[in-house]
Amino acid sequence: MKKQKLMINGERLKNTIEEFANFGRTENNGVTRLALSKEDLLAREYFIHCCKELGMSVVYDDMGNIYGTLEGVDNSKPPIVIGSHLDSVKKGGRFDGALGVIAGLEVARTLVENHVRLSVPLVVMNITNEEGARFEPSMMSSGVLSGKFDKDVMLAKKDIDGITFEQALNESGYVGSIEARLKDAKAFLEMHIEQGPILERENLAVGVVESVLGMVCYEFVVQGESDHAGTTPMDMRRDALFAATNIIAAARRKLGSLDQNLVFTMGRINAYPNIHTVIPNRVIFTLEARHKDPTVIQRVEEIIQELTQINENEGCTIMAQKLWDRQTVFFNEELANKVEAACQSLDYPYKRMDSGAGHDAQFLASYIPTVMIFVRSVKGKSHCEEELTTWEDCEKGVNVLLETVLSL
Amino acid sequence: MKKQKLMINGERLKNTIEEFANFGRTENNGVTRLALSKEDLLAREYFIHCCKELGMSVVYDDMGNIYGTLEGVDNSKPPIVIGSHLDSVKKGGRFDGALGVIAGLEVARTLVENHVRLSVPLVVMNITNEEGARFEPSMMSSGVLSGKFDKDVMLAKKDIDGITFEQALNESGYVGSIEARLKDAKAFLEMHIEQGPILERENLAVGVVESVLGMVCYEFVVQGESDHAGTTPMDMRRDALFAATNIIAAARRKLGSLDQNLVFTMGRINAYPNIHTVIPNRVIFTLEARHKDPTVIQRVEEIIQELTQINENEGCTIMAQKLWDRQTVFFNEELANKVEAACQSLDYPYKRMDSGAGHDAQFLASYIPTVMIFVRSVKGKSHCEEELTTWEDCEKGVNVLLETVLSL
Repeated sequence: MKKQKLMINGERLKNTIEEFANFGRTENNGVTRLALSKEDLLAREYFIHCCKELGMSVVYDDMGNIYGTLEGVDNSKPPIVIGSHLDSVKKGGRFDGALGVIAGLEVARTLVENHVRLSVPLVVMNITNEEGARFEPSMMSSGVLSGKFDKDVMLAKKDIDGITFEQALNESGYVGSIEARLKDAKAFLEMHIEQGPILERENLAVGVVESVLGMVCYEFVVQGESDHAGTTPMDMRRDALFAATNIIAAARRKLGSLDQNLVFTMGRINAYPNIHTVIPNRVIFTLEARHKDPTVIQRVEEIIQELTQINENEGCTIMAQKLWDRQTVFFNEELANKVEAACQSLDYPYKRMDSGAGHDAQFLASYIPTVMIFVRSVKGKSHCEEELTTWEDCEKGVNVLLETVLSL
Repeated sequence: MKKQKLMINGERLKNTIEEFANFGRTENNGVTRLALSKEDLLAREYFIHCCKELGMSVVYDDMGNIYGTLEGVDNSKPPIVIGSHLDSVKKGGRFDGALGVIAGLEVARTLVENHVRLSVPLVVMNITNEEGARFEPSMMSSGVLSGKFDKDVMLAKKDIDGITFEQALNESGYVGSIEARLKDAKAFLEMHIEQGPILERENLAVGVVESVLGMVCYEFVVQGESDHAGTTPMDMRRDALFAATNIIAAARRKLGSLDQNLVFTMGRINAYPNIHTVIPNRVIFTLEARHKDPTVIQRVEEIIQELTQINENEGCTIMAQKLWDRQTVFFNEELANKVEAACQSLDYPYKRMDSGAGHDAQFLASYIPTVMIFVRSVKGKSHCEEELTTWEDCEKGVNVLLETVLSL
């Protein structure tokens, strides 16, 4: 007879998600819990309370990241870390970030109530200011921990009221020691909602995340000439919007045929002077593209340069300037295989996939073996009050997480 | 031997244009002279001084329009009126509006110094607030005179400091009687810079203006769905900007082949939420088109409706709503012929043409025989400090005006 598998408590998980959602719950059942806000501090306090209830020890580091540690058999060994973030965007959802922290709590609770002692310590981690919604940039603290961001620069970041991150952190009481920082671990595991529609389309609850896609973002500046809309014949115009729409159409043709997994977006566009009776003399728009394969991204950048030389320029000059890029982050293959094996052992249909969005895990992956687990997002929505993952899918995801932890 | 033709004084005209340009001259040799501003009041005062110097009587009506009258042989007959406006936009040019008033003064000066007495009175008129740059709408006072605008509504219009037009008018001291309004005239003649590039392209100094083009302005609202730019596959998007660029491209194809004299402009476009990492869920843009022939404008409106049903809608809904329209205003044919004859008698190459821009003359044309004379704009520029018409072209234009007045 098959040994009874250790499973998490779905009802408790659901209740805990809703308890955390009370800290900043919005009218439409979303959450506003900006980093180090009153709501975030309440959520942190409750998180610590839950950890201590399980007999976990709690420390925080100099960036306000909180670590709850459940002792293992050999506490001198590097721990297994489950982490994500409790902060949200303005009018965000109940799941983005919080689910990954609560999943860690639920794994710890399941272990404790079943008297299962891991060979190594288990750390549940709440990472400060992932969203960057109050203090830019996003993934601030994982960026500092991994050396991507300079701590002093981050401390000086201000919110819209002019309060610095340093002030907010000092006032929160969560300034711990630099020694407490996550330095070494057997594994970092982040469970997160997909924030996209792929799992839903394929009718799957769980995704094994292999990478965070590389991306590149350019800004096009199209410069024409402003003339009177009523008095300037069509063949004497240098209409920057006409040129911009030609570029966008050509970009879609060229990028659309490049690779079916490439995603690209012109999310921001501004025309000047933006008056209905004046021919636009200047249009500025962004083109952002993401793909796993750096050679595809390189081809995107070549196409962008080709587009500045487009024949259909309407007499305008076209410049494209790179705003930023990021390389594809590949997660730990061995860990991904463990997550996959967990899905199989639980008999959950799953998919190996990539993350188009950024996560703390991508920074921590630079010095810790890391992997992510995705759970299905209804309609692919996130960063909005409608953001939803069913209780059943949440439960499945945390069971995969637990099974992965046990297999480690 | 040919009789010596009466000609205006080009040097005096140039000096007068520069004298008026001193009232609000900008750093870059443009003019800021908003309606009823300190600068406008100085220009009005100087205009009245110039009129009185010539022995003209001066009155103003209840909208602050100023009328300087030079007596003719029979002063009971309807006058010939030459008019335009002394107000400008912010950082506008020295010629737009002012030239038409100064041209009237120069005609009167030429008549007086040559002891030529017209059979009817000659009125030189300065019309209040043509630009609408301080108090919207433009052509405010000619609108009231012609019954297009309600006077009480106009009096209540406020500038950005909250001052009403009524307050500004009262404080200016230019509130005259309603009886002084322009009621009847033999002709209204407005000389104006072209504000477009057609005369320059055809190497002509003067245009005989037959009409002010009819126009229609629509607003398109394209509604898609906002999703994460990194996590949403291309085939699952409802990108409102993609749909908008499809509509603009289709509009250019359809409208571009409709009639070569049609002009159309998408001058204003806004995308929402306008964030580089978010697929736009909403794009709003204007489409404004102008043509002389109402049947062409009607076809434009049909095409706009067809565009809302475009196949390439990217899963978005498309609405188009008319913001406003105006009918083509045809100027008096007999007067246009007189202006043409004047050009011919002066041996100035000219062109019969239309005005794409709006002018006070278009409202006055509803009850007074009216025509406009255009002079060449360098590079078609207006409403900017670079606005320029050469002294030679100004002189030619005023000679045509004088010759037209004499032929009446």
